[in-house]
Amino acid sequence: MKHQTTLRKPGTEIRKVLAENVRTLRSRLGISQEELADLCNLHRTYVGAIERAERNVTLSTLEVFSKALGVSVPDLLTPRPQRYDKNA
Amino acid sequence: MKHQTTLRKPGTEIRKVLAENVRTLRSRLGISQEELADLCNLHRTYVGAIERAERNVTLSTLEVFSKALGVSVPDLLTPRPQRYDKNA
Repeated sequence: MKHQTTLRKPGTEIRKVLAENVRTLRSRLGISQEELADLCNLHRTYVGAIERAERNVTLSTLEVFSKALGVSVPDLLTPRPQRYDKNA
Repeated sequence: MKHQTTLRKPGTEIRKVLAENVRTLRSRLGISQEELADLCNLHRTYVGAIERAERNVTLSTLEVFSKALGVSVPDLLTPRPQRYDKNA
């Protein structure tokens, strides 16, 4: 309960994890932001904004990225991008 | 690329995982939906809607639940509620 007053403080940590994972996984696939956007039926500038950790995305958008990038939603939000290097 | 045409199909799977995990973790803490809502500075009906998998929540809401329930955001979205039983 000690975090009660700060729970709604806007966090950027999880957005940064997502940003880094999307960028890393997209690069591994060798596709551009625009190509990923086409694949996800999203706008290119929206993908760019996510990779800059600017967007507070929803579960359904996470699911779309998850499918396009071939990882689970929890993996997309796990701060271990180096994991992908091991399996490359 | 085979999933291209279905990527934007609204999925309920990840919502159901979140719903089940929130409900399980909240029960473990022995608090009501209303108490969890107060802790998260959200409305009680919103917590209920999430536990019924009705809401397409954002990253920031996931982060709030993560802190209130004492698990990581990836854990909140991982379909293994039985895991919590082991550590109870």
